Amino acid sequence: MDLTKLKRPVFVIDRAKVRRNAGRMAERARRSGIILRPHVKTHQSAAIAGWLREFGVRAVTVSSVDMAAYFLGAGWTDVLISVPVNVHQIPEIDELASAGTVHVIVESGRTAQALLEGAAHPLNIWIEVDAGYHRTGLPADRHEAIVEVARIVRRGDRHQLRGLLCHDGQTYAASSPGRVREIAAASITALSSAVDALAKAGFPGLSLSVGDTPSCSMMEGFPPPITEIRPGNFVFYDLTQSGIGACGEADIAAAVACPVIAAHPERDELVVYGGGVHISKEAVRLAGGEACYGKVCRLRSDGTGWGPPLAGAFVSSLSQEQGIIRMPPLIGRTAGIGDTLIILPVHACLTANLHAAYYVIGEGWVDKFRS
Amino acid sequence: MDLTKLKRPVFVIDRAKVRRNAGRMAERARRSGIILRPHVKTHQSAAIAGWLREFGVRAVTVSSVDMAAYFLGAGWTDVLISVPVNVHQIPEIDELASAGTVHVIVESGRTAQALLEGAAHPLNIWIEVDAGYHRTGLPADRHEAIVEVARIVRRGDRHQLRGLLCHDGQTYAASSPGRVREIAAASITALSSAVDALAKAGFPGLSLSVGDTPSCSMMEGFPPPITEIRPGNFVFYDLTQSGIGACGEADIAAAVACPVIAAHPERDELVVYGGGVHISKEAVRLAGGEACYGKVCRLRSDGTGWGPPLAGAFVSSLSQEQGIIRMPPLIGRTAGIGDTLIILPVHACLTANLHAAYYVIGEGWVDKFRS
Repeated sequence: MDLTKLKRPVFVIDRAKVRRNAGRMAERARRSGIILRPHVKTHQSAAIAGWLREFGVRAVTVSSVDMAAYFLGAGWTDVLISVPVNVHQIPEIDELASAGTVHVIVESGRTAQALLEGAAHPLNIWIEVDAGYHRTGLPADRHEAIVEVARIVRRGDRHQLRGLLCHDGQTYAASSPGRVREIAAASITALSSAVDALAKAGFPGLSLSVGDTPSCSMMEGFPPPITEIRPGNFVFYDLTQSGIGACGEADIAAAVACPVIAAHPERDELVVYGGGVHISKEAVRLAGGEACYGKVCRLRSDGTGWGPPLAGAFVSSLSQEQGIIRMPPLIGRTAGIGDTLIILPVHACLTANLHAAYYVIGEGWVDKFRS
Repeated sequence: MDLTKLKRPVFVIDRAKVRRNAGRMAERARRSGIILRPHVKTHQSAAIAGWLREFGVRAVTVSSVDMAAYFLGAGWTDVLISVPVNVHQIPEIDELASAGTVHVIVESGRTAQALLEGAAHPLNIWIEVDAGYHRTGLPADRHEAIVEVARIVRRGDRHQLRGLLCHDGQTYAASSPGRVREIAAASITALSSAVDALAKAGFPGLSLSVGDTPSCSMMEGFPPPITEIRPGNFVFYDLTQSGIGACGEADIAAAVACPVIAAHPERDELVVYGGGVHISKEAVRLAGGEACYGKVCRLRSDGTGWGPPLAGAFVSSLSQEQGIIRMPPLIGRTAGIGDTLIILPVHACLTANLHAAYYVIGEGWVDKFRS
């Protein structure tokens, strides 16, 4: 495919950057002697997950039962479904557990009980605990409630209670790397205390699974009882992560390549074919307060990737299929109809989700799961 | 499918409401003696577009060349692609023009010239004009520039210049129905003046195509030279439209049905399986300033649809696959794990885009275009 003459928006991947990002994260896990179980919801692609095998990755995290079925079907044998079990999907989960090693999470006695009654094949069960994000999970300091769910899980002798699992999504609101580390440290303290309480209640040797991309990118190490981390976004990174300090803009490994369809130099704007259904409407705020739906780069002339973000250029508005690019006058005059612009995403997971396939620069298309 | 026991989030449609919404819009067009050419990007479904045939609809508007190919392949014979032509897609457009009546829009001499050189089959060409939205289109008051593009189009004697086309997307920022009508009236005055200027320059009898959903829902009528309107969202409507006053909440004909996977009465929240990849992250602000990603209804007990929005309940946060619902304590205590909640969308077009198929309540699944 000629990226300089685009028929439609294309999700492009710089594989060398993915490899560098993945290698760094794998090295961080290796130094702490823990497992990297990447969250593959970011790309939903067995091919891209496969790129991480060279770094020893053998297990993945997914965000739905359907995605688990796709990865098990694609040859992955150890899959964790990181959304609390939907009681109406237990028959599907049970079927998957007959085909591979399946991990699920529960955060209520009600759901744990339903699993015991409905799942015949062995499952690895994690109790989800909330250390401050307040989405799902039992509050980390409610030790009695956590032990109570553990007791229900133990009644099902087919299944194995693996430990506690937490997602510290509150790191995404952190204003600095220091603040991310503080949140992660407080979380690990609270979670370790809950693991201790379980040990005292007759559940010794349980593991701890943690893993948002900001804290996994910035923590010094992963102390026991952590046995695995589940970051996802780090393979691509994005403007949200660079804003937090989890990566540099040069680490962002995925983008949307869009053709320019209109030029309006009188108002310093270009319009690309590429809108909310290609880029997603997640925004970050620029220093001046403007909503930014993506930063803008040029293709490198040798076709091997893209250059740094153009100073002052950003996606200022998104319709369903079109995006308005604010362009500083000097740059705007050198780009026009038919040219390709590269849009760095605000939230790579949601952007990737909008595409049926990805184009790896210099290699070709890779396939992915679609719900 | 049993909507009371959901395995995964489902985009649901109340067909009776679609029919009522479509009938009203068709009647508005009929009274003014103009064509309703609905913008089918809202649902991207030939089946749903087919529901409008009973109201005399014979032509559609689409937002991409690929979507045009899908609708032409599904038996629609008159399709307008309402995004300025991407010069690299002219071969595809030319092929479509050999199979049906294809309308395209241009807003620059550069693109008009490329069309003349690259398209062998007859096209219907509209010049896009901007009456205040400032996305694409030549400014409506730049009559000379508009005439200049018309002259280029006329050089291609295979093609037919149909007229001027405008999308007044600025109505979406209007604070009241009165303001929507003011914007629409000013736009029509400016566009009529441009049509007059074209007539004086030797291009008599040109048409005017307008049509955002707010103004099409609220204008008194559609005076000449308007010959067609292109609203899209009106088939479903959504919380953005009800906020503007283009519809009532009872008119919203599509929603996402989600199973509850976690209950947190201690903080008046439920969590559904249903996130940004099912609902989309478009938000409206509530009176108290909170971001609202959807309002929340219950399924009707007779299974024919859903009730009115629950007072005080709304989607307050969306992760990739999960949504947090703020629930007033009294309602929250009567809903729990395994129950179904109905989420009214903020922007139905973007929500529909995320689903591979739709479930029409009481009938079954309908298929759609997927890029």
